[in-house]
Amino acid sequence: MQQVLMTGAAGGIGTLLRPILPRLKVRMRLSDLADAIPQAEPGEDWMPGDLTNPADAARLVAGCDAILHFGGISTENRADLIHEVNVKGTYTLYEAARKAGVRRILFASSNHVIGFHPRETRLDADSEIRPDSMYGVSKAYGEALARYYWHKFGIESLILRIGSCFPQPKDRRMMATWMSKEDMLRLIGAMLFAPRLGCPVVYGVSNNRESWWDNSKTAYLGWVPQDSSEMFATKFADYVPNDPNDPAILYQGGNFAKAGHFED
Amino acid sequence: MQQVLMTGAAGGIGTLLRPILPRLKVRMRLSDLADAIPQAEPGEDWMPGDLTNPADAARLVAGCDAILHFGGISTENRADLIHEVNVKGTYTLYEAARKAGVRRILFASSNHVIGFHPRETRLDADSEIRPDSMYGVSKAYGEALARYYWHKFGIESLILRIGSCFPQPKDRRMMATWMSKEDMLRLIGAMLFAPRLGCPVVYGVSNNRESWWDNSKTAYLGWVPQDSSEMFATKFADYVPNDPNDPAILYQGGNFAKAGHFED
Amino acid sequence: MQQVLMTGAAGGIGTLLRPILPRLKVRMRLSDLADAIPQAEPGEDWMPGDLTNPADAARLVAGCDAILHFGGISTENRADLIHEVNVKGTYTLYEAARKAGVRRILFASSNHVIGFHPRETRLDADSEIRPDSMYGVSKAYGEALARYYWHKFGIESLILRIGSCFPQPKDRRMMATWMSKEDMLRLIGAMLFAPRLGCPVVYGVSNNRESWWDNSKTAYLGWVPQDSSEMFATKFADYVPNDPNDPAILYQGGNFAKAGHFED
Amino acid sequence: MQQVLMTGAAGGIGTLLRPILPRLKVRMRLSDLADAIPQAEPGEDWMPGDLTNPADAARLVAGCDAILHFGGISTENRADLIHEVNVKGTYTLYEAARKAGVRRILFASSNHVIGFHPRETRLDADSEIRPDSMYGVSKAYGEALARYYWHKFGIESLILRIGSCFPQPKDRRMMATWMSKEDMLRLIGAMLFAPRLGCPVVYGVSNNRESWWDNSKTAYLGWVPQDSSEMFATKFADYVPNDPNDPAILYQGGNFAKAGHFED
Amino acid sequence: MQQVLMTGAAGGIGTLLRPILPRLKVRMRLSDLADAIPQAEPGEDWMPGDLTNPADAARLVAGCDAILHFGGISTENRADLIHEVNVKGTYTLYEAARKAGVRRILFASSNHVIGFHPRETRLDADSEIRPDSMYGVSKAYGEALARYYWHKFGIESLILRIGSCFPQPKDRRMMATWMSKEDMLRLIGAMLFAPRLGCPVVYGVSNNRESWWDNSKTAYLGWVPQDSSEMFATKFADYVPNDPNDPAILYQGGNFAKAGHFED
Amino acid sequence: MQQVLMTGAAGGIGTLLRPILPRLKVRMRLSDLADAIPQAEPGEDWMPGDLTNPADAARLVAGCDAILHFGGISTENRADLIHEVNVKGTYTLYEAARKAGVRRILFASSNHVIGFHPRETRLDADSEIRPDSMYGVSKAYGEALARYYWHKFGIESLILRIGSCFPQPKDRRMMATWMSKEDMLRLIGAMLFAPRLGCPVVYGVSNNRESWWDNSKTAYLGWVPQDSSEMFATKFADYVPNDPNDPAILYQGGNFAKAGHFED
Repeated sequence: MQQVLMTGAAGGIGTLLRPILPRLKVRMRLSDLADAIPQAEPGEDWMPGDLTNPADAARLVAGCDAILHFGGISTENRADLIHEVNVKGTYTLYEAARKAGVRRILFASSNHVIGFHPRETRLDADSEIRPDSMYGVSKAYGEALARYYWHKFGIESLILRIGSCFPQPKDRRMMATWMSKEDMLRLIGAMLFAPRLGCPVVYGVSNNRESWWDNSKTAYLGWVPQDSSEMFATKFADYVPNDPNDPAILYQGGNFAKAGHFED
Repeated sequence: MQQVLMTGAAGGIGTLLRPILPRLKVRMRLSDLADAIPQAEPGEDWMPGDLTNPADAARLVAGCDAILHFGGISTENRADLIHEVNVKGTYTLYEAARKAGVRRILFASSNHVIGFHPRETRLDADSEIRPDSMYGVSKAYGEALARYYWHKFGIESLILRIGSCFPQPKDRRMMATWMSKEDMLRLIGAMLFAPRLGCPVVYGVSNNRESWWDNSKTAYLGWVPQDSSEMFATKFADYVPNDPNDPAILYQGGNFAKAGHFED
Repeated sequence: MQQVLMTGAAGGIGTLLRPILPRLKVRMRLSDLADAIPQAEPGEDWMPGDLTNPADAARLVAGCDAILHFGGISTENRADLIHEVNVKGTYTLYEAARKAGVRRILFASSNHVIGFHPRETRLDADSEIRPDSMYGVSKAYGEALARYYWHKFGIESLILRIGSCFPQPKDRRMMATWMSKEDMLRLIGAMLFAPRLGCPVVYGVSNNRESWWDNSKTAYLGWVPQDSSEMFATKFADYVPNDPNDPAILYQGGNFAKAGHFED
Repeated sequence: MQQVLMTGAAGGIGTLLRPILPRLKVRMRLSDLADAIPQAEPGEDWMPGDLTNPADAARLVAGCDAILHFGGISTENRADLIHEVNVKGTYTLYEAARKAGVRRILFASSNHVIGFHPRETRLDADSEIRPDSMYGVSKAYGEALARYYWHKFGIESLILRIGSCFPQPKDRRMMATWMSKEDMLRLIGAMLFAPRLGCPVVYGVSNNRESWWDNSKTAYLGWVPQDSSEMFATKFADYVPNDPNDPAILYQGGNFAKAGHFED
Repeated sequence: MQQVLMTGAAGGIGTLLRPILPRLKVRMRLSDLADAIPQAEPGEDWMPGDLTNPADAARLVAGCDAILHFGGISTENRADLIHEVNVKGTYTLYEAARKAGVRRILFASSNHVIGFHPRETRLDADSEIRPDSMYGVSKAYGEALARYYWHKFGIESLILRIGSCFPQPKDRRMMATWMSKEDMLRLIGAMLFAPRLGCPVVYGVSNNRESWWDNSKTAYLGWVPQDSSEMFATKFADYVPNDPNDPAILYQGGNFAKAGHFED
Repeated sequence: MQQVLMTGAAGGIGTLLRPILPRLKVRMRLSDLADAIPQAEPGEDWMPGDLTNPADAARLVAGCDAILHFGGISTENRADLIHEVNVKGTYTLYEAARKAGVRRILFASSNHVIGFHPRETRLDADSEIRPDSMYGVSKAYGEALARYYWHKFGIESLILRIGSCFPQPKDRRMMATWMSKEDMLRLIGAMLFAPRLGCPVVYGVSNNRESWWDNSKTAYLGWVPQDSSEMFATKFADYVPNDPNDPAILYQGGNFAKAGHFED
């Protein structure tokens, strides 16, 4: 593992991770759409590109041993845009990776793939797909695509159902779903250097007290999150009466489950 | 259940079903692309339309109580065509159904959604998605989409993972995967008239001796297949030595699992 | 197995079974409250008694090898009556049986013990208790009591969650829940003559096409129902549009799940 | 959550908890039978009442947001007393809560609901009910009742199968079953302030090394016990030869499983 | 599949099968110890040999496409004999098969591999090994050996846990465990001609009403037993009172579970 | 627990454990083949013996309360030697223990009993036996034997599937499989002093980050490993590119799964 590509590097998670990526001790190629790329920090290697363009995708993946694929639309949006970027774009990236001989990919999926499970249902890697949004549907497509490239071509993918990777929890729900950037970096390290990755589903979440997701089936990766949302508990200590059957409270997807159709 | 739309009615399964559809005692609107529509039989009601076109979709679903959605590309093909027809087209149909107030849909998925499971693994509605083709990936998208419309909008879908719905089995593998047209019609009847459908996954297969798929979780539908491939057993009685680790023998998807990428 | 007691013999199921009980070739003692007992048919042996009265219970069970306990309140009712009859009465019977050395009991429980499961959830002997009524709660008490007498005192009970044991299905829901009197008799025979009964949970239902309940875990009993509600299918063939989220449609308990509190 | 009722507050667990209840920062109404109520400590609010009396129950629950229901008979006893207090009394309390609009209840169940499982069987929320006593049977009734009020009326209950909540373990078995008062208080806090409680089964036990019960399915509550019986390990370090098939050693219920019928 | 070896062909099952083996339409080489071989019937091909002798084993398997390995000690016996014949002999046969390139073996295991499960526990291919005898322990060795040769060398084995393969049931227990010779032949046919066998565990039992074993996981083989012990039901119709906790009644192994150590 | 026998005490694990055995505070009889026994340390009690010799076995177990059975061949070897020592020898020891009334045995099994499971399959006590060597097959025999003596004679065994019990991990794979001698000693203590042991399967592994095996089903033993291979992480930090489908990387058994037959 010497050369790694990160797509969507100018997005929220990319921005959180950039300062600590050097700890991985790999050469990191950062990529995003040309007009999204920020001022490069010292030592950063940026390469612009549009993942829906096969030529761009080929250029980005050339010479890479692995890809951290965080690019794409990361919240609910118009269906046509989601289809263009998250369906066609993800396919284009995997196809470029296959042709270039890249063997290992982190696919940034989302908890919104399973957002219509009630909070009191404990999920693991085998839980039923229940998208709470067209965004979630597009991530289900990506997960299926990753499995196809694994079984057909032997390309290993870590399917990462990210909870809420922000500097800190923004609301009460994120006490359960928060993932620290440090735990994200630990997971990337585990994924890059595992002797065998396979094609596992991992929930991207820190070691929070409130917990909906069980990663024990992927303990072979050696990823043990070290952080916890508990350090932010006082922020959400006030009891807010709510309706337990409000979709935003009932379902794991929170407001995504409650929201109507984006385009209406 | 008075007015039902069948998409893809000029395709293989539609052609098999057309002569026996009147037994359902519903008004059936048959649809397909304009240039695919055959000569109408007496009593048939054909309406042409392109499901990737929202206006066409809206016209087709207008006034329907239910939809039998067999339209789309039904075998491996170029990824861009599959994305256009099976991803965008399926979304367009569901969106039209939602706007028109259609409450029940049969979504014709495929065994190629789970084609990379070994034959000796018994599958049921909760088995892991393992597409064996881009066609299978597109059906995984459709299944996720059906779940989304169920949980978000209450539109019921029967997700039907069809085995091999032909007049008779064409090869040794189809002794396990064959579904008779009569059993298909019985399933459509059960789906149309169930007091509650929900959003179940059903494997579309007759009561064959060799059996890979377990439908017991959906026994509430009352669908009990009556036919069996056994009547064709003599056609495949000669033993053909083969390599048990040949992907076409090892995996449920058969030649789909063995084939390389369509576009290569 | 020579002498068997049937409690509640003047109730609905008792009345259905009485004409065919002689096929079991055991001496049957029929019991019910004194003022409920009908004109005895030739060869019938009636003994009145109130199961909430320990002395009556002792008299009824004296000399019996087994008990078919159908006595009690069999539908929703005032909580105080249910507590008196179904809680105190069932305890009194089991206690009398223990003191008299009776080794085997059929406890007539009900599908209303699990009535709040959705229809599309397939249940078996290990499914979660979800009573849909105070009647159902009292049957959950009786099931727990039967288990206690089994593990503590070695008294074997067949816990029978009866669906709808009537001459024929009365509504669409009973197409799934109907149990013929012949299948009930077969089950009683299997229970009386099994080399070892243990303390199994069995769903009392014929071999209907629509099926919510899986009895495969108790196949060791050798009970294979032979009848099916299918013979009554034409009675309920007309499609009745309904709301799939109406509690009477959504839940297995039907109208019991929909009904409010009895006493309100 | 401003006003909370604790029933059975003069009992063993109530007495342990009273000094630390103020940490919950809610107004706590303490209740027990009139002649059991101790001298009130400063700031305590006692209200006597008999839970088998509907008028008393109504008075106790009036104005409460939640109830901690520890009242009732808490060990094996005469069946008629158990029926009166734990069956009728629990029903009376739930009915009062329903009429008063209380939305959340902690129901103090017991490990004796599952006491006839062998010690080497690991249990979780879905394990089979196997009461080891009439006391255990009455708690099975209460659990079924809580589920009924949840599914029918939306009243949330935490069903708490308490192990051994004492100042410290009293015998070797309690090294596995001990629950500290601090962990009990943490659980009450989690239960009172969870955004959604639902109707979970939780085993009330500290983080002991010897462990029979798995609470992972209810990790969504955020309750992580912090204490361990290990601090008392030296008390029980001497090896005592015993018969592994002695019911008190074989079964989780310990001496409850071994004891004969209370009334004999 | 042209040449097949049957070991132990002079034993009980071999003797039952010999007259109907020609239906398989393969050349069958029958083998047993020299002094056990009976008068050959017309068309039979007998070859004597001792499976504990590598030279004999090599001679027997030479030129064979598949082996039906019924040879060995088939009931409880002295441990040293069992080790010699069932451990060393089975290893010697598999090793000979490996060297000769035989690709498919039926290993005659026994229900006594799982004989210490209670009758009311339904078993399938994944149930825990619980031998009821040293005979059963030796069969557990053989099952492990078959798995080793499958995963290491790709030799397919059908691990057949035979119930009671006799002309008819000999006692009440065999109503559950009986396997007709016709169903055995059907299974051998399915095993010989399956496109892929793998290394499945199958319970060898007819379609009896009393059923302890679930073969649904191996339905891919297409073996559907057609006979039932029910035709012999009248032989065992008399009720024989027994102790449900007698090991011969409690456990699936029957008298094997009850018997003491063979050599004592 | 006063007198305990350790067999194979001169082997690798015995040598690691000897200096810390006194912490168990039992009288320990150390045994091995006469010519393997090292110079005794002060306080050590050595007794030579060959476990394949019944007289030796009887002498060794005389007067013992428990046995730690580490004797036997501990890696792949000639099949005849493995049969002699690990099959016949283990049987001889258990038989001696039975005759002498020993009630508790630790049977040193091995991860090579399940070595042909892929690394990303999480295993527990119920996982399928998949030996990766004749050594592993012999351990499967021993596990079956231990179960037989438990169910038939009530002799409790801890079946310990040891990972890699060395002073420190020797290669990358052992980061997942390593077990410290301290954790081994803790487990022996838990096993010797448990009120009831039963016949559990435990994976012998420290609390390593990379984890393939789940011991939660045996948490009743109170064994919580305290060490972790993480302290040796820097030794294996260099990334070594490898083929994820190399049997030594793909399977849990590592090189045992890759190796051919020992005797070839």
